[in-house]
Amino acid sequence: MTMQAVNAMSYEEFLDVFGNIIEKCPLITAAVWSNHPFSSVNEMEECVYEFIDSLPSSGKEGILRCHPDLAGRELTSGSLTMESQQEQRQAGLTSLTSGERETLGLLNSQYKTKFGFPFVICAKMSDKYKIMEELCSRLQNDPSQELLKGIEEVKKICHLRVQELSRSVELTTKL
Amino acid sequence: MTMQAVNAMSYEEFLDVFGNIIEKCPLITAAVWSNHPFSSVNEMEECVYEFIDSLPSSGKEGILRCHPDLAGRELTSGSLTMESQQEQRQAGLTSLTSGERETLGLLNSQYKTKFGFPFVICAKMSDKYKIMEELCSRLQNDPSQELLKGIEEVKKICHLRVQELSRSVELTTKL
Repeated sequence: MTMQAVNAMSYEEFLDVFGNIIEKCPLITAAVWSNHPFSSVNEMEECVYEFIDSLPSSGKEGILRCHPDLAGRELTSGSLTMESQQEQRQAGLTSLTSGERETLGLLNSQYKTKFGFPFVICAKMSDKYKIMEELCSRLQNDPSQELLKGIEEVKKICHLRVQELSRSVELTTKL
Repeated sequence: MTMQAVNAMSYEEFLDVFGNIIEKCPLITAAVWSNHPFSSVNEMEECVYEFIDSLPSSGKEGILRCHPDLAGRELTSGSLTMESQQEQRQAGLTSLTSGERETLGLLNSQYKTKFGFPFVICAKMSDKYKIMEELCSRLQNDPSQELLKGIEEVKKICHLRVQELSRSVELTTKL
């Protein structure tokens, strides 16, 4: 992917390609198009992060709420976005034992009751054991700490999705 | 729909019901859940409008860019959201003559080239003749005027979608 090709995209093409770099928040991608042309992929990512940081707490909480539970109802019903499906599979969440699934469900539920948003972690940088450990540990955080932590993870997920798109054959063909 | 029932919803239920009151921007609905409980539907709507108004210009432009063209590629390919499909049909945009479709396509295209976002209008309060007239007239605006005008229309669309949801049998059953 060359930045020249990205910068030449209409907002519609830009949304087609980068619309889900923040899970179910095409609004953010669409907003960031206002900052093009970009000098590099890094600069494009920085614009995404700055936009997120500029949102009030409710907006940051909103971003987290657009994320699915790990090994939750969307995974079971097959309604995850393509990106989430791949990330959860890679972290081993599609092949949990029934005991593990039950434990994770219980922890997710406790987490959501406490914070009012779902537990978000960059699954691709983790595995099912680390995820459960981290979930137990982050359950102890206070809400403002945890909001920051969740948003940090959103940015890691975004970074990996952008990297993946840069490599993908589909994109190369498109460009 | 009683506000008591709405206020008792989890953020997931709230998103299932109200997730598309701003086209393809579940982030906004998810953010607004942070303000619950609401004393009335009006107060809930006000929270949506305040959130939108608090966004930088790029965010407002982003909202507009999440909207489909009127009688555009999504209508042709059947990939409109359920709400947009209904609104565009009601305004007569699914039964244009080929000449009308061509004219509208040309005007949409001129508009997007000038402003970098699509022409947004509350189709339900209009018809194909008024839409074309309005499009011609708004093409003359300057970008900052037009951004405000587009966002006003987004709010009108939101208001009608919320009203529709309040009436819908499906929602009554859900609650």
